[in-house]
Amino acid sequence: MSTVESAISGEQQKPMKLPRTSESESLKKIRHTTSHIMAMAVQKIFPQAQVTIGPWTETGFYYDFALSEPIAEKDLKAIKKEMIKIIKKKLPVIREEVSKEDAQKRIETINEPYKLEILEGLEDPISLYHLGDKWWDLCAGPHVETTGDINPKAIDLETVAGAYWRGDASNAQLQRIYGTAWETPEQLAEYKRRKEEALKRDHRKLGKELGLFIFADPVGPGLPLWTPKGTLIRSTLENFLKEEQVKRGYLPVVTPHIARIDLFKTSGHWQKYKEDMFPMMAETPEAAAIEQGFVLKPMNCPFHIQIYKSELHSYRDLPIRLAEFGTVYRYEQSGELGGLTRVRGFTVDDSHLFVTPEQLDDEFLKVVDLILSVFKSLQLKNFQARLSFREPDSDKYIGSQEVWDKAENAIRRAVEQMNMEYFVAPGEAAFYGPKLDFIFHDALEREWQLGTVQVDYNLPERFDLEYVSPDGSRQRPVMIHRAPFGSLERLIGILIEEYAGDFPLWLAPIQARLLVVSDEFLPYAQEVVTKMQLQGIRAEVDLSGERLGKLIRNAEKQKIPVMAVIGEKEVQSNTLSIRTRVTGELGQLPVMEVIDKIKTAISNFTDWK
Amino acid sequence: MSTVESAISGEQQKPMKLPRTSESESLKKIRHTTSHIMAMAVQKIFPQAQVTIGPWTETGFYYDFALSEPIAEKDLKAIKKEMIKIIKKKLPVIREEVSKEDAQKRIETINEPYKLEILEGLEDPISLYHLGDKWWDLCAGPHVETTGDINPKAIDLETVAGAYWRGDASNAQLQRIYGTAWETPEQLAEYKRRKEEALKRDHRKLGKELGLFIFADPVGPGLPLWTPKGTLIRSTLENFLKEEQVKRGYLPVVTPHIARIDLFKTSGHWQKYKEDMFPMMAETPEAAAIEQGFVLKPMNCPFHIQIYKSELHSYRDLPIRLAEFGTVYRYEQSGELGGLTRVRGFTVDDSHLFVTPEQLDDEFLKVVDLILSVFKSLQLKNFQARLSFREPDSDKYIGSQEVWDKAENAIRRAVEQMNMEYFVAPGEAAFYGPKLDFIFHDALEREWQLGTVQVDYNLPERFDLEYVSPDGSRQRPVMIHRAPFGSLERLIGILIEEYAGDFPLWLAPIQARLLVVSDEFLPYAQEVVTKMQLQGIRAEVDLSGERLGKLIRNAEKQKIPVMAVIGEKEVQSNTLSIRTRVTGELGQLPVMEVIDKIKTAISNFTDWK
Repeated sequence: MSTVESAISGEQQKPMKLPRTSESESLKKIRHTTSHIMAMAVQKIFPQAQVTIGPWTETGFYYDFALSEPIAEKDLKAIKKEMIKIIKKKLPVIREEVSKEDAQKRIETINEPYKLEILEGLEDPISLYHLGDKWWDLCAGPHVETTGDINPKAIDLETVAGAYWRGDASNAQLQRIYGTAWETPEQLAEYKRRKEEALKRDHRKLGKELGLFIFADPVGPGLPLWTPKGTLIRSTLENFLKEEQVKRGYLPVVTPHIARIDLFKTSGHWQKYKEDMFPMMAETPEAAAIEQGFVLKPMNCPFHIQIYKSELHSYRDLPIRLAEFGTVYRYEQSGELGGLTRVRGFTVDDSHLFVTPEQLDDEFLKVVDLILSVFKSLQLKNFQARLSFREPDSDKYIGSQEVWDKAENAIRRAVEQMNMEYFVAPGEAAFYGPKLDFIFHDALEREWQLGTVQVDYNLPERFDLEYVSPDGSRQRPVMIHRAPFGSLERLIGILIEEYAGDFPLWLAPIQARLLVVSDEFLPYAQEVVTKMQLQGIRAEVDLSGERLGKLIRNAEKQKIPVMAVIGEKEVQSNTLSIRTRVTGELGQLPVMEVIDKIKTAISNFTDWK
Repeated sequence: MSTVESAISGEQQKPMKLPRTSESESLKKIRHTTSHIMAMAVQKIFPQAQVTIGPWTETGFYYDFALSEPIAEKDLKAIKKEMIKIIKKKLPVIREEVSKEDAQKRIETINEPYKLEILEGLEDPISLYHLGDKWWDLCAGPHVETTGDINPKAIDLETVAGAYWRGDASNAQLQRIYGTAWETPEQLAEYKRRKEEALKRDHRKLGKELGLFIFADPVGPGLPLWTPKGTLIRSTLENFLKEEQVKRGYLPVVTPHIARIDLFKTSGHWQKYKEDMFPMMAETPEAAAIEQGFVLKPMNCPFHIQIYKSELHSYRDLPIRLAEFGTVYRYEQSGELGGLTRVRGFTVDDSHLFVTPEQLDDEFLKVVDLILSVFKSLQLKNFQARLSFREPDSDKYIGSQEVWDKAENAIRRAVEQMNMEYFVAPGEAAFYGPKLDFIFHDALEREWQLGTVQVDYNLPERFDLEYVSPDGSRQRPVMIHRAPFGSLERLIGILIEEYAGDFPLWLAPIQARLLVVSDEFLPYAQEVVTKMQLQGIRAEVDLSGERLGKLIRNAEKQKIPVMAVIGEKEVQSNTLSIRTRVTGELGQLPVMEVIDKIKTAISNFTDWK
């Protein structure tokens, strides 16, 4: 894995690098062992507790316990104390290999029915790990050599939650304790800082505080409603990309949100993607039985294909780039929904390019160029390129091996030609073709999938798409599916967290707020705000009549980038006293200079520093 | 009835006024009598034909016949010939009044079972009309005195179509002949001219020729897909109104296209409007049975209400004007769908204003002002104001008599204050409140409903909306629902017909096309087109390489407002030879003057004349 950062200029201050369990042999050992230590401690304090499973996660570990008595958050302290005792004892961690039969007998002795069930799924020989001679569990390892190898200042217990045995809600409910363990106390401290920061940046929390969007129970989960302020951010992003696209020859279209089921049978969605779609709309149970009715679209592609198909195209017309901010609906399970990053209705900055096979490579590179330029404007810098290919031998996909190879090779050629370093992720393809996905690492090193480009030979075949070639014969175009943002919802969710709510000037719903020291200066403020608005600046006057201190605090809370204070001095000299979120006090400046500075920052996608 | 034309400046050339049957006693007589003459003629030519009903329509009449043998279009000639014979005979049209029993006996004699069924529904005494002494039918009249009063040069037969007895598809199929009859041959000629013109202006035909939108079978009926050109018109209209609204303090929002059924139970849509909604999306038949699931929104109001409700408002925040180009879905019967004017999915230029009772009148007037200014920009001039009130004693509505009276009075006050002449249409209200509708009469004097403003005390009650009044008490706001366009789809359909496809400059998808006499002038053309595009003009160069005559014909066919021809002379003098759709040849003009003229016309919503 490596970043394509070099494709984008600019720098950003990076936090201390934290290793992930899957990438660190050392952390695997530490977290495996610490989870055993925690289980041993829990059984010491709650002797009736039965252990089930206790795997590592990318940032720590957990263990599930069967115990009638509830474990409270406050018990975690006692458990941790006990864990430190176990660490201090420097108990050797010893692997033992026994026959399955032997393992079964030993488990029966200690009366651990869950372990017995786990054992059933394992194969001879069985690997056990002992902590000293008082405690053992089934485990494949790896582990450190003694509990003393764990740094007691680099571990912590985090929270208790409910979980079901084998993740199935019809099974017994268990209690899950989450913990974390690191190589050094510094790593633990950095991890805690990030957690705290993530909580502060949580886009659900900030979205509420800044009044950007709401969810409403009567509407349903995963269906955001965009308030006036959030809509300003949405439409600024939308207009920005639309303009960029028009310059690059994209043609906007508008298509319905529903279609007959038949359309999605032809596309293959109904066969391969049905479980992600909302239930059908059928007039009667009989119509439902024969699948006659309408469905919400989970993707825009079949609609753009209909527009392409509505007339016969010559090779001279190609490439045709149809673009739509198309709202699609996917039936995510309610449990999986979270703020804006996992929703049931979202607007894809979608486009489908119909190209000749000869144009494919060039058009693909142009799309990547657009995506990188969009990311640059958004000040997003830290990426990985993921080649999302198909999982061999899976029946999740449509189309032959041959066309998949062709499509995957096209993507590989593109990233190689751009000298982009990449990693391959089998099984992450769309059902109709492979993807180049851009994985963004945010300020807290969390991964988010943003833009995507896909190569598709399958839908042109299924919809029998054609163009007339120079020799007059009918040929099949190739399709490129692409979305630089991914979706407006997801992007805004990520941006809120990345910016910690401090939108850069061009995206801020309110760019400047005028604060008057006294009501007598309101006429001047109104005059200035009108000048600003005429220049396309989203400015407003605070009319609440509060005192200056309160006005400033309110604007700070709303994270408004530019505050302009107006008093006697400012009115007399036709100036404004400026205070920006990024730099703080900038002193008294002429009105026209303020307007210029704001406009320059907006058009450069930067802040007024 | 009268027009509110005076509210809008400007004039337009009006076609000869044609009376409508419902407004003309003379036409009622003529059409009643002509339909009888036609029936008599049909029975002369097809003696087995049985007559059923034969009413007048606003532009003519029809008669339904039961006859096993099919009546072909070519038979209409013979029928008309026979009709003229009957007219020439000057048969007296004589009314006779008989008892129901007597009428029954007479019908049995002539073996007309459908007449017998019609008779069953009539009450004593029964009115018959005789044409001479050979033919009679049940009829309430009125009629002319003799068939000789019909001008044989002012009548015509139009078409034959299938119809069902009593309009019910499970009954016998009948044959319906449509005809028309007028006072004078001039009226007939004008009527025919309009019919022909309507055919030429048919937006379905023009939409296809100009490539503005398509319908696709796999997507479904009534669900238009907007091509790049049509999308340009849509977004130009959308951006125009958005700008106008932002100036007037509207706040754009974005809401989902679906919600839980519960939302529409609270609003009353589920109880009063369900038959116009798409079938629900339920996960299982059990969920469907208890109405648990999602539905497509038929209106945007309940969503905007959720945004209003998401925080507590003070009277100081009001009025709040939430606006959305919200796409809604209504389950019109497939038989009722026609082009863009009756669709299943359409985008309403919707807004909901939350106002205090004191603000209602003023806000209502401001909305009407916005609507009239929008119509003016669209060059639509011929309107009627319709007060769509509730039908007394109907159960179609929610809410008490008292709040309906309040709402209806508010609308009446507004139109009276504006000195707007109006007519009242009982039964045309929305289920939640009365409406002021603007009925537009197009160049062919056809009526279309466009903009609407509605006053609503009911939804604020049902959703328990509040604001904090100056005395700190909680008060109920009033809602205004409004849509100046009505919907983008409907408006564009009407505009295509009204403009006969010749969009004014500001709305034309392609505003200017550059035509080169020879390929050697392409570099100059490219240079000019770039200048135009930088000035926001939608311009393109025709690259087809055809000869000038063909280039001009193609641009004419596409109804492109401005053609700029480029040859040797133009390149040398940095000019363009201009030809506009409206005026024709304008000669050679400097490039910058052309750009200025186009920009001026665009910003004035006029053509470059």
